[in-house]
Amino acid sequence: MPPAGDSPFLLACHNRPADRVPVWFMRQAGRSLPEYRAVRGSGSILDAVRDPALATEITLQPVRRYGVDAAILYSDIVVPVAALGFGVEIHPGVGPVVAQPFRDEADLDRLRPLDPDADCPYVQQTVRNLVGELGDVPLIGFAGAPFTVASYLVEGGPSRTLGATKALMLGRPDLWARLLDRLAGIAVASLRAQVLAGASAIQLFDSWAGTLSPAMYERHVLPASAKVLAGVADLGVPAIHFGVTTGELLPLMAKAGASVVGVDWRVPLDEARARLGPDVAVQGNLDPAICLAPWPAVEAAAHEVLAANGGRPGHIFNLGHGVLPETDPSVLERLVELVHGVEAPR
Amino acid sequence: MPPAGDSPFLLACHNRPADRVPVWFMRQAGRSLPEYRAVRGSGSILDAVRDPALATEITLQPVRRYGVDAAILYSDIVVPVAALGFGVEIHPGVGPVVAQPFRDEADLDRLRPLDPDADCPYVQQTVRNLVGELGDVPLIGFAGAPFTVASYLVEGGPSRTLGATKALMLGRPDLWARLLDRLAGIAVASLRAQVLAGASAIQLFDSWAGTLSPAMYERHVLPASAKVLAGVADLGVPAIHFGVTTGELLPLMAKAGASVVGVDWRVPLDEARARLGPDVAVQGNLDPAICLAPWPAVEAAAHEVLAANGGRPGHIFNLGHGVLPETDPSVLERLVELVHGVEAPR
Repeated sequence: MPPAGDSPFLLACHNRPADRVPVWFMRQAGRSLPEYRAVRGSGSILDAVRDPALATEITLQPVRRYGVDAAILYSDIVVPVAALGFGVEIHPGVGPVVAQPFRDEADLDRLRPLDPDADCPYVQQTVRNLVGELGDVPLIGFAGAPFTVASYLVEGGPSRTLGATKALMLGRPDLWARLLDRLAGIAVASLRAQVLAGASAIQLFDSWAGTLSPAMYERHVLPASAKVLAGVADLGVPAIHFGVTTGELLPLMAKAGASVVGVDWRVPLDEARARLGPDVAVQGNLDPAICLAPWPAVEAAAHEVLAANGGRPGHIFNLGHGVLPETDPSVLERLVELVHGVEAPR
Repeated sequence: MPPAGDSPFLLACHNRPADRVPVWFMRQAGRSLPEYRAVRGSGSILDAVRDPALATEITLQPVRRYGVDAAILYSDIVVPVAALGFGVEIHPGVGPVVAQPFRDEADLDRLRPLDPDADCPYVQQTVRNLVGELGDVPLIGFAGAPFTVASYLVEGGPSRTLGATKALMLGRPDLWARLLDRLAGIAVASLRAQVLAGASAIQLFDSWAGTLSPAMYERHVLPASAKVLAGVADLGVPAIHFGVTTGELLPLMAKAGASVVGVDWRVPLDEARARLGPDVAVQGNLDPAICLAPWPAVEAAAHEVLAANGGRPGHIFNLGHGVLPETDPSVLERLVELVHGVEAPR
């Protein structure tokens, strides 16, 4: 079997031609799959992540079903801070909830450096299990970007507006910078451990970065994300940098150091490429809500995504955000067939 | 006192120079004001809207406190469909909830044409009250754009993803077009009644349009919004066309026929103007979350907004979305002072 380095996914990550357009789906392992619901039970996702056998099985389920070109580790962006004891739980249907939100200097002490072997050995064990099972299918490890993780720690629960986060960022810029620096160090430690255990690529999830103006992103967020990416650059695995509603941030994200930038469906890929420049590969960007429509509409929209990329190498087909729980898995099966059936970029 | 037509707000709506940069705030009347909480009680907003004396008082409160350059009618975008008996309630902290969501052709019958005098005379009564009270301060009437109203009717409750709405749009495009056509007619009837009762400008709220790709917006949403704007064009009042995360939609929104386009904080105003063209005025675009930060940060961010506009006429200062309930009113007072103190566009 070919080494993972020649896989369509990794070739596309490096902006190189491949035999086919690679495809995977954010949140491909999850509630949309009956086999996931069957094994997952009703406990916290954090408990499932702490069980390497279960996390391995959940990670493999969509690879078996869909034949996607990459697996993504079943985990969550708050796993490292939860493992450090910051007091984070994930409530089903709500998201991360923090008992004592981040407020002041004293809370920095609750964010000591991550020691992956001691704090979350189950993550690396799952990665090792998966590398043995996946063969030539690359495994993507991941971390939350400092801003998005900080937003959960500061808000303490779900927030559409991130008002407390932005008030801290602007009102106490020094404390904010120290918080993001801590979180950058934690992300680097987590990502390095995943890569050293066998992950072939990493994705940095800055899901809520697009809530920021370009000026605030550049001043208060980009440096910490760039630090994370620089902290794993020597490992030689490609990095994907992801967020939603990031249209105006794409030129800045292109500077952060990732080889691939995720693009949501609001920005057509040709326009995204114009903003990112020729050296950056793109991942995306079908609206996940479209997967709830009848197949002919999904098919047409998928072809529009491919047409907007125009056959250029360096396109990883994906949704613009995670699979919605109400998605029919057969739609994703057909999407993989469709993407694999188009003429490969040369 | 000068006629409202020479007010800084209306001059800016027409892209003409004014004595000062006009400023008002979306949701300036609302939970951020202690005087609002004092008069509002705990009933439904729909009940408050149905009480012209109360709605008049609530509309006037921020004009008195802030000295803003425009009042906006205290109402809600679901008032017309609620008045038609579609079965819409607004639950505090949740938003519009529809007992029987829109699903099929038969539901079109629940959306008969609006007869404002019979269905919602209280709205026009409030407008008449206000015109008498406001003097030279223009009153903005408003309606929900067909897409955003449809999204509430189809989803039945709050949704971040609008999956059911998009599935209907793509899966049943003919039914979708008929739904939006009905809602366009209802919006036109509502807006005309507000203008004939004395409103000096209108705003079309398409708050969630930015959840769509440009292609979906252009095909399935823009025609209905353009129809609304065309349906009030003969009245000679300026129209403001508003949404959030609309960066990629701005060139399309510029074609819909409004004299002003609202811009959220994600797109700097100079970039927004480049996308909108020289004939369209802009409204925005301070991030409302920034108003939770200490004053020096708010001040700096407000100056950045003004600098991005570069002193051009046709700028109405506003937030990029509604005032957050936790905002300290004194911050908005200072913002009005700041904006009124800058050199006027010439």
